Amino acid sequence: MQEEPEVVVLRLGHRPGRDERMTTHVGLTARALGADKLVLEDVASGRKETVTDITDRFGGPFEVEVTDEVMGRIRSWDGPIVHLTMYGEPVQKVEDEIRAAHREGALLVVVGAEKIPFEVYEHADFNVGVTNQPHSEIAALAVFLDRLFEGRELDREWEDADQVVVPQEAGKKVVDPDELDNPSEL
Amino acid sequence: MQEEPEVVVLRLGHRPGRDERMTTHVGLTARALGADKLVLEDVASGRKETVTDITDRFGGPFEVEVTDEVMGRIRSWDGPIVHLTMYGEPVQKVEDEIRAAHREGALLVVVGAEKIPFEVYEHADFNVGVTNQPHSEIAALAVFLDRLFEGRELDREWEDADQVVVPQEAGKKVVDPDELDNPSEL
Repeated sequence: MQEEPEVVVLRLGHRPGRDERMTTHVGLTARALGADKLVLEDVASGRKETVTDITDRFGGPFEVEVTDEVMGRIRSWDGPIVHLTMYGEPVQKVEDEIRAAHREGALLVVVGAEKIPFEVYEHADFNVGVTNQPHSEIAALAVFLDRLFEGRELDREWEDADQVVVPQEAGKKVVDPDELDNPSEL
Repeated sequence: MQEEPEVVVLRLGHRPGRDERMTTHVGLTARALGADKLVLEDVASGRKETVTDITDRFGGPFEVEVTDEVMGRIRSWDGPIVHLTMYGEPVQKVEDEIRAAHREGALLVVVGAEKIPFEVYEHADFNVGVTNQPHSEIAALAVFLDRLFEGRELDREWEDADQVVVPQEAGKKVVDPDELDNPSEL
């Protein structure tokens, strides 16, 4: 988020065809919950457009990078690395330490799909389990980001949005931000 | 969770073919993050086996119900109803009130896929947005449950598991719970 060290979400192990929607949801969750950037492997490049389109419509900043050197990006990362895995240490045990590390530098969050090379477990500073139960990498990423930012991400501001959702007790209200009399009330 | 009023997650609007993995992840997230039960529409009945299989292997209690009367289940629910939607009120604003309502009775959490009938918005006691941004119903459910239970779900105990993951700083360790000398150390 703005005014904090960067958080980059790297999606690893995307399987073309099978993982398209999952990878899209990883990307949209990263954007909505405070990350600054998504890194996709070249095999997942088709997902870039959807995430970029949402950013164009609902605001940013949020960047999407496609790379054919995904392991190189992990190896050369200059800052703490978190790998989300059901085999890792409980998030509630390590989150304080991760927040402290993030205050010092840009954080890379690796979100795997299927088989993850053992090198990733070794290279990560923190292997983190959001429970040690099998569920969803999207759910794990969401809980991790909400805890990393301690909820601040829910109040972040969006720049250059074409559409803004106005929260409603019931129903749907979407407006052009230019039409709002007082955008600070959102 | 055990010793708390029930939390039931109802998956609404499942589209066969397109939503299979998303609905599975909704179900596994519900189980892993403290809900007691998943309700699926009959068109999503194929997802029941996967969630039940995970419960058989990794423990419960967790129930899966398939119904051909999904709107009837919502209309006749005796307790508070939350509907997760990007158009709703911010979770950080309404979560205290929802926790208070849940202390009084069983909570139904409706998680939609595509088009949701307006009746659901009207019938829900709380339309809740985990941000007002488009992202993922799996992510929204995860953050909602973690906040509802204030993290207690991460420490819940599992009954009748055949497999238990032992958290590791790096690597994977899965054991038969009977082989553990001291299961309380998990």
